[in-house]
Amino acid sequence: MYSFMAGKPLILISNDDGYQAQGIRVLTELMSTLGDVIVVAPDSARSGASCCITPFQPVRLILIEDRPGVLVYSCSGSPVDCVKLASEQVVPRRPDLVVSGINHGDNASISLHYSGTVGAVLEACMKGFPAIGYSLRTLDHECDFSPYEDVILQVARHVLEKGLPVDTCLNVNFPQVPKLLGTSVCRMARGRWVTEWVPAEKTGEFRLAGEFHNLEPDAPDTDYWALDHGMAAICPLHLDMTDYAALEDLESLNTRRR
Amino acid sequence: MYSFMAGKPLILISNDDGYQAQGIRVLTELMSTLGDVIVVAPDSARSGASCCITPFQPVRLILIEDRPGVLVYSCSGSPVDCVKLASEQVVPRRPDLVVSGINHGDNASISLHYSGTVGAVLEACMKGFPAIGYSLRTLDHECDFSPYEDVILQVARHVLEKGLPVDTCLNVNFPQVPKLLGTSVCRMARGRWVTEWVPAEKTGEFRLAGEFHNLEPDAPDTDYWALDHGMAAICPLHLDMTDYAALEDLESLNTRRR
Repeated sequence: MYSFMAGKPLILISNDDGYQAQGIRVLTELMSTLGDVIVVAPDSARSGASCCITPFQPVRLILIEDRPGVLVYSCSGSPVDCVKLASEQVVPRRPDLVVSGINHGDNASISLHYSGTVGAVLEACMKGFPAIGYSLRTLDHECDFSPYEDVILQVARHVLEKGLPVDTCLNVNFPQVPKLLGTSVCRMARGRWVTEWVPAEKTGEFRLAGEFHNLEPDAPDTDYWALDHGMAAICPLHLDMTDYAALEDLESLNTRRR
Repeated sequence: MYSFMAGKPLILISNDDGYQAQGIRVLTELMSTLGDVIVVAPDSARSGASCCITPFQPVRLILIEDRPGVLVYSCSGSPVDCVKLASEQVVPRRPDLVVSGINHGDNASISLHYSGTVGAVLEACMKGFPAIGYSLRTLDHECDFSPYEDVILQVARHVLEKGLPVDTCLNVNFPQVPKLLGTSVCRMARGRWVTEWVPAEKTGEFRLAGEFHNLEPDAPDTDYWALDHGMAAICPLHLDMTDYAALEDLESLNTRRR
């Protein structure tokens, strides 16, 4: 803690691949060029953790690394637990920015609902912190993140300087390409996972697999289109999931006077 | 399977409190008055499971009960796994309705992001099934659900008859009252969880607790207001979390031609 510089931005980092993953190590080095960094990340891979929390068991926090401007903690909880615990028990003051990732695997379209990377971002947003999630469309545990560094820093600088609207956070996805063809500020594509289960070794047991179908492959304003066309997809998300357009359709169920 | 009646609606049920919870047993009996029922629910309590999935382990399905019009399966996975597995491996055809709950504990405001009950509903919605989640503001494991039966059936009948808009599902919350004072078709309140951790027995370990702060207690169009005023809160949710209003604010990050 004593090594933190007064006046520098404080950046909290988490992920769902665990504190040892390559993506979070790259992100830590990038963010340390912008400010003081505190990493609080799961002790092991938590892919598909969504916004899950740990209500029934104690959650453990262990200091792993302490060097000038960088503190790294491992946490036995979920990505959301990491952000909750960091914000109450670790950070010396409100973070100026929370970033999550870089996830090994994309979190575009509806896949963001399952994502622990995005879960950590939503949690930070619920706490009122500006927050960005970064994910790369890859299945490799080790890969070259250098093509995405400029955009990662550009988006982080933008949020540090201009902030984000209340209850809004960013979900940034990258295609695996040697060179990005651009950036697209975009919406979530509509999609569907199909053929999700394969029989496991024992009868009555199944393993999750599945195939993603983009339901609007020709819509250039979507995150999937951007990824399919070699661009970074920058999608603003809102915490409020209310379907305002549906309120009127449901009026016959309402007895409250408007 | 053979006991199902041709022409009756097929209703899939899940929850996050486990197949043995009182809330899902009540919901099963209520839904069996509307159609044939298949329950696929976790084998134990999964509160706070959100939309988490089980990517790394096999998931087991066990038939627990088979009586005319009602099949009950226990599943070793999360609520979302239950719906995914049910829809591919259990139901004989597309369900006409998916319901989740009745959760012991409310899932209003931002708490829905953590909810396994709502996770199952969002998953059903992602599969294109009309879906409703029901939750009761209570901490009791056993309680009287009779004050809510009429509204539970009314909302289910509405959805069976009229359907829901594409990518929209319903999050219904009840206050614990002897008699409901009405129903409110409403939006999510803005809220925040604070003071979330208490030290556990061991140093460096913490237990999740926390207190919810409603950030707009005077807004009568919110779910929390409805609950605080003795009314059922019926909130339509949309799968698309894009913050459309923010797209323009972020235009300086965009290089794609609009």
